[in-house]
Amino acid sequence: MHRTHTCGELTIADLGKTVVLSGWVQKSRDLGGMTFIDVRDRYGVTQLVFDTADDGALRSKARELGREYVIKVTGRVIERESKNPKLATGEIEIKVVSLEVLNAAKLPPFTIEDDTDGGDDLRMKYRYLDLRRNPVRQNLVLRHRLAQETRKYLDAQHFLEVETPVLIKSTPEGARDFVVPSRMNPGEFYALPQSPQTFKQLLMVSGFDRYFQLVKCFRDEDLRADRQPEFTQIDCEMAFVEQEDILNLFEGLVKHLFKAVKGIDLGAIPRMTYDEAMRLYGSDKPDLRFGMSFVELNDIVKGAGFPVFDSAELVVGINAAGCASYTRKQLDALTDFIKRPQIGATGLVYVRVNEDGSLKSSVDKFYSPEELQKWAQAFDAKPGDLLLVMAGQADKVRKQLNELRLELAAQLGLRDKNTYAPLWVVDFPLLEWDEESGRYHAMHHPFTSPKPEDIPLLDSQPGDVRANAYDLVINGTEIGGGSIRIHDRELQSLMFKHLGFSPEEAQQQFGFLLDAFTYGAPPHGGIAFGFDRLVAIFAGLDSIRDVIAFPKNNSGRDVMIDSPAPISDGQLAELAISVK
Amino acid sequence: MHRTHTCGELTIADLGKTVVLSGWVQKSRDLGGMTFIDVRDRYGVTQLVFDTADDGALRSKARELGREYVIKVTGRVIERESKNPKLATGEIEIKVVSLEVLNAAKLPPFTIEDDTDGGDDLRMKYRYLDLRRNPVRQNLVLRHRLAQETRKYLDAQHFLEVETPVLIKSTPEGARDFVVPSRMNPGEFYALPQSPQTFKQLLMVSGFDRYFQLVKCFRDEDLRADRQPEFTQIDCEMAFVEQEDILNLFEGLVKHLFKAVKGIDLGAIPRMTYDEAMRLYGSDKPDLRFGMSFVELNDIVKGAGFPVFDSAELVVGINAAGCASYTRKQLDALTDFIKRPQIGATGLVYVRVNEDGSLKSSVDKFYSPEELQKWAQAFDAKPGDLLLVMAGQADKVRKQLNELRLELAAQLGLRDKNTYAPLWVVDFPLLEWDEESGRYHAMHHPFTSPKPEDIPLLDSQPGDVRANAYDLVINGTEIGGGSIRIHDRELQSLMFKHLGFSPEEAQQQFGFLLDAFTYGAPPHGGIAFGFDRLVAIFAGLDSIRDVIAFPKNNSGRDVMIDSPAPISDGQLAELAISVK
Repeated sequence: MHRTHTCGELTIADLGKTVVLSGWVQKSRDLGGMTFIDVRDRYGVTQLVFDTADDGALRSKARELGREYVIKVTGRVIERESKNPKLATGEIEIKVVSLEVLNAAKLPPFTIEDDTDGGDDLRMKYRYLDLRRNPVRQNLVLRHRLAQETRKYLDAQHFLEVETPVLIKSTPEGARDFVVPSRMNPGEFYALPQSPQTFKQLLMVSGFDRYFQLVKCFRDEDLRADRQPEFTQIDCEMAFVEQEDILNLFEGLVKHLFKAVKGIDLGAIPRMTYDEAMRLYGSDKPDLRFGMSFVELNDIVKGAGFPVFDSAELVVGINAAGCASYTRKQLDALTDFIKRPQIGATGLVYVRVNEDGSLKSSVDKFYSPEELQKWAQAFDAKPGDLLLVMAGQADKVRKQLNELRLELAAQLGLRDKNTYAPLWVVDFPLLEWDEESGRYHAMHHPFTSPKPEDIPLLDSQPGDVRANAYDLVINGTEIGGGSIRIHDRELQSLMFKHLGFSPEEAQQQFGFLLDAFTYGAPPHGGIAFGFDRLVAIFAGLDSIRDVIAFPKNNSGRDVMIDSPAPISDGQLAELAISVK
Repeated sequence: MHRTHTCGELTIADLGKTVVLSGWVQKSRDLGGMTFIDVRDRYGVTQLVFDTADDGALRSKARELGREYVIKVTGRVIERESKNPKLATGEIEIKVVSLEVLNAAKLPPFTIEDDTDGGDDLRMKYRYLDLRRNPVRQNLVLRHRLAQETRKYLDAQHFLEVETPVLIKSTPEGARDFVVPSRMNPGEFYALPQSPQTFKQLLMVSGFDRYFQLVKCFRDEDLRADRQPEFTQIDCEMAFVEQEDILNLFEGLVKHLFKAVKGIDLGAIPRMTYDEAMRLYGSDKPDLRFGMSFVELNDIVKGAGFPVFDSAELVVGINAAGCASYTRKQLDALTDFIKRPQIGATGLVYVRVNEDGSLKSSVDKFYSPEELQKWAQAFDAKPGDLLLVMAGQADKVRKQLNELRLELAAQLGLRDKNTYAPLWVVDFPLLEWDEESGRYHAMHHPFTSPKPEDIPLLDSQPGDVRANAYDLVINGTEIGGGSIRIHDRELQSLMFKHLGFSPEEAQQQFGFLLDAFTYGAPPHGGIAFGFDRLVAIFAGLDSIRDVIAFPKNNSGRDVMIDSPAPISDGQLAELAISVK
């Protein structure tokens, strides 16, 4: 038997017991004739004591233990002289009578502490050692808890978890597929799913009514810090529902998770249309932990002879409350920020609201104090506020102002990781124009239903057609998205036509779905949550890499196992492929 | 709103309520001036009634509904005249006041009934319609329930579900890998995991202590009815354990599943060594729903001048209790059965135990009645029993007799699908000789620990080394298997050597694991259950295909979506591969 208790379990109530513990040597220190060793496992740390006065040989053996040695000890629980109230086991220690080294350990390449000295690359290569560190393991414990609670909630709501296939078929729509050559069908390939979209829709046609799955999905895209080639979705679909049913049910899931895992009562989740979100925040995923919504000034500022504003499609600004004391240098830094190439704005106008209510702006030359007071009114400005105004082509300037808003909020400490501001964004456009290919793309995916009242616009103003599509946003991050689906063969064919598919292509790629719609398909819709992203939000982390046990780096490599790697000529021959 | 209730919900307690139901038209019949329609969803069936006397136009519309039309009705719950006690909703019906066709349906290619007229191929092509049938859906509901209960049990035992990567590295050991060309690393490939074996061991090195995962695994092998290229495992690993800890904990899981899902108290699961299983049943997965264990007769039968027995390494038989009345024809059929090429036996000796205790055998020429009475004693035979005896090379004859035992039991109705006889088989050999490659292979896998006391035999008698490896068998089917793992770098290197790896090959393929063992690896072990097979056993099914939502056929094809399929030249070029 390797242990009677874990290293996080023994308390003053266990005094006098003879116990067996196993774990890793966390640290060791000598004091007089004694050696104290902290032994660690997943559950905690317990102090061991070896006393020369009791057993000199045993104590000598203990002194030879290095960090991260795996040991097994037998001993008696005694009361500690100097108690450690921070530790669950801090009132006791184990007077060891026997010690077995289960495995020796080389010196780890970085320290196994909450704050480690290891760089990213080293920690990726020795990921199994990085996973020993408390913060990393806690992320995965949190992930487990969130997965369990998700299943518990959805099970109670009569959802069935159904496994859909991983070896499916490549489709031209969407991101790039990973493919798998078929040995039994030479020259043919499976694809790994970017999502189980069509399968979950077929399950609705099958009458499963409520489906979910925590499922691995795959995208062969160039990677960024927050993207991984394989990622996990909470994938859901429901039949006989309208958008309202789905929003309510999954609002319930999100609230359950916050309550069960973080003890937070989230309250009702507000809703905003896509148009509103773009107009008020310049983003389809506004961060609502703070205000600073956009104020449009065209009616007030035009015609005063200030050419930048007079020629602009849109003049729009935000009220940085309490920031009137920003120095010239700080304002210049903000201007530099929005002029960076990735944002690309040309300039920033400011108005300071002084303590006495008077105004000082960078455009005093063009606007009288009375005119500027109208600005202040529009912003509902108070003494001490700072108004920041930009101008340009409407879509562009909104996106630029969104960047400024987020930057300012970060500077002001308004993006607190322990505050959660969720939001439903609804009524997304059905289609978006793609300059590169010169055609419309599905904004969500080709199976999304247009709003019935907008269908007549499909031919004349395709860009104005709204979809029954919705995103869940938390703290400016898209956590989930979904839509009511098309369940009618004719409408689905029409959508494919608008997306540039010939009838033959549509039938070849999605014939099984089009056919399925003719055998009694119910109205249905669903949603998918990015599970990695959700865990990261709960953990207060920016990157999903920290919530994945064995992530890949930005080149798609697992540097620990050294994958991908060449395969043998025999394997290539069996698969009937060759490497160019 | 599409419904106020499901089709399985309304009872006499709901009389008078106005309700909205949605579902599929199951069947329709006219009776006098009325039309009765059964509307179906996942939850049940409800009878709708349309009466010409109330609304002639509505009733006409109802008469036009075809099977599998998707409809939505509003109506009032009334008491049925002729009640159907078999149906949860059998006491009520809905007097419909409005009817909406949500989607029309073509005539399905086979009937959507519990017993369908559709053949295998047709049902695979229209899998989404086959999934509408109750028995098929019930299998997936059972699968969901088993997955939930597995997670519930393991979570309560402090196991953490950790997702391991799907894109890993190809290894030469074991079955053939599916591979995935890497676009970002041209000429290199990922492999899909045959199991997360090395990752779960690394999690033990990381101190996760208890890991599990319901995880898709992949094997590119030629398919049989009970094999699929992608399948699901309940994959588990524990640190600081010995074999006994693992058997106890997972015996608990199996008992929990039987209790929670089927209401069956399984009792303690017996254990048997591999040697015993082979000697008593000629199989490492004996079906213990019935007896007929093997009786060895060498001591009794040799030297009587019967050349077949005298020259045989082993003479061994079974007592087919109560089968003395088997006719000559039946006995000939059994002999034909064991002579089939896939079994390959040469003959069968029988002894009938008559009602008066006298014996009649096919070898009366060679054995006196007194000698045959010794046989009867060895079999503990009673009047009415039939003794069946075979002879030959020991390993072969045991396997042949195993086939006969199973066939007889099937004929006698002893393989009842509602009886469950679980068994742990322990002490498997570490290695097995492979004629084809002329070397030893790992019987379980290369990470399995030999029994410490057998390690000295590794060089001299490798075939005799026993492993700390175990299988869970239910009703003659292997449901799970596992082992205590090697956690010592030297021993692991020794194992690789015995499996024919050069030190360089071992380091190149498994260097990360060998390295991990030097940084403080705890003793650990685990088990994996074939989840598809487990669900099939619970469902009383022979093929795992029936418990998988979207299975592939024997050529690895999904005939519904027509996958695998060729990919575009552009995709091939991006991946830097070409098809030969």
